[in-house]
Amino acid sequence: MLDPARKYFQCTDRERAIFEAGIKLGGIFHQYTGVPVNESNVTDIERVIEKSVLIQPFVKHVSVEINIGQSTSFQYTSLSGEMMDVRLTVEYNGQMVNARMHYVQDLNYPLMYLEE
Amino acid sequence: MLDPARKYFQCTDRERAIFEAGIKLGGIFHQYTGVPVNESNVTDIERVIEKSVLIQPFVKHVSVEINIGQSTSFQYTSLSGEMMDVRLTVEYNGQMVNARMHYVQDLNYPLMYLEE
Amino acid sequence: MLDPARKYFQCTDRERAIFEAGIKLGGIFHQYTGVPVNESNVTDIERVIEKSVLIQPFVKHVSVEINIGQSTSFQYTSLSGEMMDVRLTVEYNGQMVNARMHYVQDLNYPLMYLEE
Amino acid sequence: MLDPARKYFQCTDRERAIFEAGIKLGGIFHQYTGVPVNESNVTDIERVIEKSVLIQPFVKHVSVEINIGQSTSFQYTSLSGEMMDVRLTVEYNGQMVNARMHYVQDLNYPLMYLEE
Repeated sequence: MLDPARKYFQCTDRERAIFEAGIKLGGIFHQYTGVPVNESNVTDIERVIEKSVLIQPFVKHVSVEINIGQSTSFQYTSLSGEMMDVRLTVEYNGQMVNARMHYVQDLNYPLMYLEE
Repeated sequence: MLDPARKYFQCTDRERAIFEAGIKLGGIFHQYTGVPVNESNVTDIERVIEKSVLIQPFVKHVSVEINIGQSTSFQYTSLSGEMMDVRLTVEYNGQMVNARMHYVQDLNYPLMYLEE
Repeated sequence: MLDPARKYFQCTDRERAIFEAGIKLGGIFHQYTGVPVNESNVTDIERVIEKSVLIQPFVKHVSVEINIGQSTSFQYTSLSGEMMDVRLTVEYNGQMVNARMHYVQDLNYPLMYLEE
Repeated sequence: MLDPARKYFQCTDRERAIFEAGIKLGGIFHQYTGVPVNESNVTDIERVIEKSVLIQPFVKHVSVEINIGQSTSFQYTSLSGEMMDVRLTVEYNGQMVNARMHYVQDLNYPLMYLEE
């Protein structure tokens, strides 16, 4: 693992992995909110978000599912955080962290959290 | 052509096509600026922008080319307007308009304009 | 009016004003969708959008109103196009165009259109 | 501290604070990249970003400085991560974390990191 930025950090490897996971989830939410989406391009958007996350440092795995609800293919809507389910694994120096963002019914907003 | 919004407009069909072309180019610039990009996902981003534009009303054709310069596949950069070359054809009630956004050397910024 | 980009355009002055109005509205929608907003910062966001539009060429006037609904100041929501009411006047070479974006009940989406 | 989301997390309080700090920095970068900026609105943008971060949970303090370089007030540029210097303090259940994003010369990109 090559990390020229390491010297700037005062934290454990696990904390670093957690920080990077937060950065990625916050970035996904704010970058892609607003993209026009319907059934014809939803799968492409899922894949392009995944690929855009995977090129960032320390990302081991990412999956993105977008639930656009009952919209028809003749119309479109704006992508929002509520529609996204993102699962992310970040590894830093052997420390693995699983993070997720998805809409949580009892909170009524898309929660970003650390799993397991 | 079905256009339930027509009654809100006070303009010719060609003016409407021009307005819609402007909306799409302004939207592309501000939606996708910031997306992490390198050689491994640049083609996917081009296609996803095209598909996201094509689902919007009155868009007849769109092509997106992204020039990421000499970045290597081990690094990535943030997509910016300067990297994009977008060609767009909008048709409204038979009136066709060609618009484009690309970096113009002598202006030193990505210009959005109407072609031909 | 100084316009070094004029030579790139094949259109009337009014068409140019219309095109520029479309660019601005499309840009506003896609740039600010996703900003965290509640009663404590909504006025600041309105003003910053206005100022960010006013520095762009040919914009004569802009007003932005954001309707965040019944959210309380303890919580926040993500800014969406449905919440925005934008009135924009663009002038190009003496040609004035009034454009607007706001949520239209009978269309059920935020419409961008040319007024009067 | 009221945190209805706490039950979803499997981590220490400090790790939670670090995660939230990452979310905020990633979000700032991707939300505001692309905003038109020059000397006339740069201070307003700094303040609006700060206010938009402060309404999010567990944020204790935030300061944003934007360096637009030698641009004149007659022109404008697009806000980019390289221009931002963000200092952020997150507190979760008594655990304080200081994070920062700013352009780092020897890395040649805007680094997000944990301070002290």
